[in-house]
Amino acid sequence: MRIVLDAMGTDDAPRIEVAGTIEALREHESDVEVILVGDRDAIEAELATHESAPPRISIYHAPDRVQGNDSPASVIRKKPHSSIVVGLELQRKGEADAFVSAGSTGAVMATSLFKLKTLPGVDRPAVGTLLPTAKEQCLLVDAGANIDCKPQHLVQFAHLGSIYAREIMGRTEPRIALLNIGKEPGKGDELSAAAFRVLNREDGLNFVGNLEGGGIIEGVCDVIVCDGFVGNVLLKFYESVAQFITSLIKKKLDALTENSLNFEEIFRILDYSETGGAPLLGVGGVSVICHGGSSSKAIRNAIKVAVQAVRSDMVAQTASRLAASMSDTAEEI
Amino acid sequence: MRIVLDAMGTDDAPRIEVAGTIEALREHESDVEVILVGDRDAIEAELATHESAPPRISIYHAPDRVQGNDSPASVIRKKPHSSIVVGLELQRKGEADAFVSAGSTGAVMATSLFKLKTLPGVDRPAVGTLLPTAKEQCLLVDAGANIDCKPQHLVQFAHLGSIYAREIMGRTEPRIALLNIGKEPGKGDELSAAAFRVLNREDGLNFVGNLEGGGIIEGVCDVIVCDGFVGNVLLKFYESVAQFITSLIKKKLDALTENSLNFEEIFRILDYSETGGAPLLGVGGVSVICHGGSSSKAIRNAIKVAVQAVRSDMVAQTASRLAASMSDTAEEI
Repeated sequence: MRIVLDAMGTDDAPRIEVAGTIEALREHESDVEVILVGDRDAIEAELATHESAPPRISIYHAPDRVQGNDSPASVIRKKPHSSIVVGLELQRKGEADAFVSAGSTGAVMATSLFKLKTLPGVDRPAVGTLLPTAKEQCLLVDAGANIDCKPQHLVQFAHLGSIYAREIMGRTEPRIALLNIGKEPGKGDELSAAAFRVLNREDGLNFVGNLEGGGIIEGVCDVIVCDGFVGNVLLKFYESVAQFITSLIKKKLDALTENSLNFEEIFRILDYSETGGAPLLGVGGVSVICHGGSSSKAIRNAIKVAVQAVRSDMVAQTASRLAASMSDTAEEI
Repeated sequence: MRIVLDAMGTDDAPRIEVAGTIEALREHESDVEVILVGDRDAIEAELATHESAPPRISIYHAPDRVQGNDSPASVIRKKPHSSIVVGLELQRKGEADAFVSAGSTGAVMATSLFKLKTLPGVDRPAVGTLLPTAKEQCLLVDAGANIDCKPQHLVQFAHLGSIYAREIMGRTEPRIALLNIGKEPGKGDELSAAAFRVLNREDGLNFVGNLEGGGIIEGVCDVIVCDGFVGNVLLKFYESVAQFITSLIKKKLDALTENSLNFEEIFRILDYSETGGAPLLGVGGVSVICHGGSSSKAIRNAIKVAVQAVRSDMVAQTASRLAASMSDTAEEI
């Protein structure tokens, strides 16, 4: 099979792409070939830095470069010789079997849509991303390609995710969950409440119901369905949190002297009860909301929040500042 | 000042509430009193388990119990003698200065709205929650009270958050960010694009622009504004991730024998590059999307994803299964 790799996609292209290709070819059987699409000179120069000339790599020249400020829909027209357009065209013509790119998600999405078309029954292609969980990885659909979704789009994502989980991830009867802000049927915003109703009686899906944000990490389903806005925010947040915590741990490890490893600070940062209760903002009084699962420490801190609010005369301050600072936004919008 | 604490809110009420109250009173000056509202017998029994009878605690009896299946709006009518309604009524009458509850967020919100009213200029009260970041804590508004928001609601949340950050959190000129799926103006769904336009020219706000999910943990702003659906999912996810990672570390520490502490497994789980590329689902071909910041390992894994997709004939499988399994959802909705 022939895999087209957009060699110009990463921030450090084509160095990263070339290295990744060589690593990939070492672990795959000889029926896998990689076509690097992009600036031929740059790719050749990069390949030359690797000692053993790797087999099963070819280059397909594509001189245009997609930039961050190119609008995704315009790429196909304005950058016809870019690695994204050229690479996907190779697949359209049957000269390649797959396309891989670290370039602009929007441009890859728009060009894929144009070159590869959608499958029957699919209004919008979705991006599925694997999330690490406490158990197996879980597929998040849509991870950012589709915003302002309609309920039927989420239902399509469920089908697409279910099929992918079964065929590629090897899950028998994949469990499909709808990301929502409550477990009970009927919970959520208009979109998720409507999607729930359809998913719940949809044939061919093992729909397991609503899943709250706190359940994602548990790994109790195979596919999580959501609008791309939520999916994108969640995904980027997850990545950054993992990086953040890893860096915290690494810093600690660097400072490690025998038996002196101290995780107190990490625990403190991650300890949610440190933050206490959540103030209800905008009411004519002080109302602080805590978790059902609060610890006594959380309650203590919530009380502190209330004390601070009262001490600073928050309500009156808020009222007077609101009056002073708010323009007539309601009329403006 | 008198703080009303809903003594019946936590999963382990009133044990947790009583313990938290005693801890709180130890650290606050003598002008702080706590009124525990709830089942008098249960609270008294719990107080009796504490050695030194704590001063500045009083009990206000409220026999009704709000249950998880009570609809938030009905609580005030159906459970007038519940700790939430009674506690907030104390504030309405001027017999208390603040209300703290770990009970149903919806019920606290609805009852607060009824008893305390909204401030002029506020259509919907919002829940602000402090998020730990790499720097200072950051206020997330709205954390789940308001779904299906209109742009003017997000603008109101921005003002409410700004005021809270200045008055309670002590931030001078609080930086307000709009949670979004891109940094540039105009990015996002209809709601966030419209909210951006207003926030960008709103007086009295230090609006710093869009913030992506990956930027939250950096702590580069004081207030993050978003719809409550996104806020709720994000918040619950954050909490669970932190707990998950902490438990991973603790497990490792429990198994610690001299110098043998091995974080490789944690790093592996948190290492996003393990998961490789994201397949674009629903198009008539294979299109795998990676990050701009991919490592060679990520590219290698993305290629693996593409290989698996091709090897399993994903596109044809998807097309045929879609045809077989999808009901006519478009018409049903």
